[in-house]
Amino acid sequence: MDITNDADGMKLALEWAAKGLYTTSPNPRIGCVIVKDGKVIGAGVTQPAGQDHAEIQAMKDAQARGHDVRGATAYVTLEPCNHHGRTPPCSDALVRAGLGRVVAAMEDPNPLVAGQGMAKLAAAGIETATGLMADEAYEMNIGFFSRMTRGLPWVRMKTAASLDGMTALHNGQSQWITGPEARADGHAWRARTCAILTGIGTVKADDPQLTVRAVETPRQPRRIVVDSRLDISPQAKVLQGGGTWVVAAIHDPDKEAALRGVGAEMITLPNPHGKVDLPELMRELGRRQINELHVEAGGKLNGSLIREGCVDELLVYLAPALLGDAQGMFALPALTELSGKHSLKFHEVKQIGADLRILARFTS
Amino acid sequence: MDITNDADGMKLALEWAAKGLYTTSPNPRIGCVIVKDGKVIGAGVTQPAGQDHAEIQAMKDAQARGHDVRGATAYVTLEPCNHHGRTPPCSDALVRAGLGRVVAAMEDPNPLVAGQGMAKLAAAGIETATGLMADEAYEMNIGFFSRMTRGLPWVRMKTAASLDGMTALHNGQSQWITGPEARADGHAWRARTCAILTGIGTVKADDPQLTVRAVETPRQPRRIVVDSRLDISPQAKVLQGGGTWVVAAIHDPDKEAALRGVGAEMITLPNPHGKVDLPELMRELGRRQINELHVEAGGKLNGSLIREGCVDELLVYLAPALLGDAQGMFALPALTELSGKHSLKFHEVKQIGADLRILARFTS
Repeated sequence: MDITNDADGMKLALEWAAKGLYTTSPNPRIGCVIVKDGKVIGAGVTQPAGQDHAEIQAMKDAQARGHDVRGATAYVTLEPCNHHGRTPPCSDALVRAGLGRVVAAMEDPNPLVAGQGMAKLAAAGIETATGLMADEAYEMNIGFFSRMTRGLPWVRMKTAASLDGMTALHNGQSQWITGPEARADGHAWRARTCAILTGIGTVKADDPQLTVRAVETPRQPRRIVVDSRLDISPQAKVLQGGGTWVVAAIHDPDKEAALRGVGAEMITLPNPHGKVDLPELMRELGRRQINELHVEAGGKLNGSLIREGCVDELLVYLAPALLGDAQGMFALPALTELSGKHSLKFHEVKQIGADLRILARFTS
Repeated sequence: MDITNDADGMKLALEWAAKGLYTTSPNPRIGCVIVKDGKVIGAGVTQPAGQDHAEIQAMKDAQARGHDVRGATAYVTLEPCNHHGRTPPCSDALVRAGLGRVVAAMEDPNPLVAGQGMAKLAAAGIETATGLMADEAYEMNIGFFSRMTRGLPWVRMKTAASLDGMTALHNGQSQWITGPEARADGHAWRARTCAILTGIGTVKADDPQLTVRAVETPRQPRRIVVDSRLDISPQAKVLQGGGTWVVAAIHDPDKEAALRGVGAEMITLPNPHGKVDLPELMRELGRRQINELHVEAGGKLNGSLIREGCVDELLVYLAPALLGDAQGMFALPALTELSGKHSLKFHEVKQIGADLRILARFTS
């Protein structure tokens, strides 16, 4: 494919970035495409943490294919890094390789580094441009940017409900409200996140594995259970395979030992009411490099997370059905004034099989 | 504009049909475009009941503009009528005028007449074709077709709710859940219907006028109030201007006289439980030539209409907000099995201002 304009180059770089959707965590998914004389001579995507960034991969790709990158244009979906992390700065590598032009979709949102990578390139005589398809690039790494700028994960709460807003009958029946396409789509959203969070209520009611199964992924997200009073059974499926974080508001040495025995890790974060301090948990997850957090919980924990301002986005699957008097999506208290409502903005609506998928973001 | 193929001709005929959206009731909105040598020489739309059908209007238009329709092609969004109603058969007029070809979007869905109009044209040597853009033509007159084939109006139930499915706070506050664009859009849906139905609960709570105000229309739909026990006040705004049908389950001569005094008409249709017999009301509205019925009622009447199988379609405006514990859209009883749910199919989803508009149809 010939690349005859910057938009096509950046579009291809975004496609390369998407190849890292399930793998680069906690690094952002960045794509890089190197173009010379209208031809793509190299392309790459961020490798798992500690390995190459996209720019390095793209230059290695060009070299392996026998191309000279000197004077070429690199399209990259984020400003090249300019600091020594687990890998050396990409900006230096681009300068050394003699690239002629670097087009970045957006600046690094971290205010401490924003613009410095591009500035170093410009100082070395490389032509630079920033801002092409910035929205698409931002969406691709919304969790990473959230953590960089706020110290918090991007919290996406998934729920499935009937058109009248019901997630389960009063007797608990809730399976298959939405169709198979929506369930597979939900697993794709799980796969891209760093961690999946649920509550003890859901663990007790449904005993979910909370793993990604309906789509292929080389990496399973971390699993997290909010369980204030450490009621979880060591036999719970969510603990199988180990690595699950159990977040409690109390200490219970025997219980904690049993849970550690099945590979779980304890996080104890009480609030003054004897529950888990949810906002503090979000800060802790930011410190633990969780970029995107996927919440699949019941109405009670959902309601608490929303009330305490911990949720950025709702991912709602609406089935074409009415359930009538049943359990709602979010246990939120009755209002006396409409002005007390929680406001959102519809971000995207799409039909998935017979269901609707609605992405809505809280407005502050 | 040159018409170089049948699809363009029918598309234009559908645009002409849409000009009758607010006016032709109880007749269907039909458009007709006459094309000769690639040029539109005449066009028309059904006039208010008792006046010209679209084909006659289009031929008169051609004549007035000095064109000869002999040998021309007529695109019409429904098979021309072949019976003497309030006007003579259009099929005869087309034959007399010497049209060369007639393309109809669909057959008349009335099984007693289906195909006869086209057959008469063919018998007279006119080339005919049927079925082009039939779906669009069907949607345009879904209420007329419902009445012709089922003896029932097409019942569209409008509601506005938050994303969590709530229409009003427990204290009754419900104004402005959705934005001004959604409210204006709702008035456009009112304008195209033959009648708007509500319940005594809404009349008492909100005292609505139930008129079309946010869009221009030369015709106001009939207003209907379901009021089993004749609780309505003669001062209710929905009675102002006269012509409102009040549907009761009891007789109360004094009350009825007072209501007739303000121009209302009584319909008494009790069921064995002392409520209005809603399915019988729908049949009565069919007999009274109501094509599309627009329901704007509270959760209780909404729930009764759905439970009794009277509703064809939901028109739901979802606001990007959460209200929490509040009043739902439809008062439907709790289920013990998910298989008891009311099933629908999403027909169309569109963003209207900041809100979503969802059209969903019940599947039987």
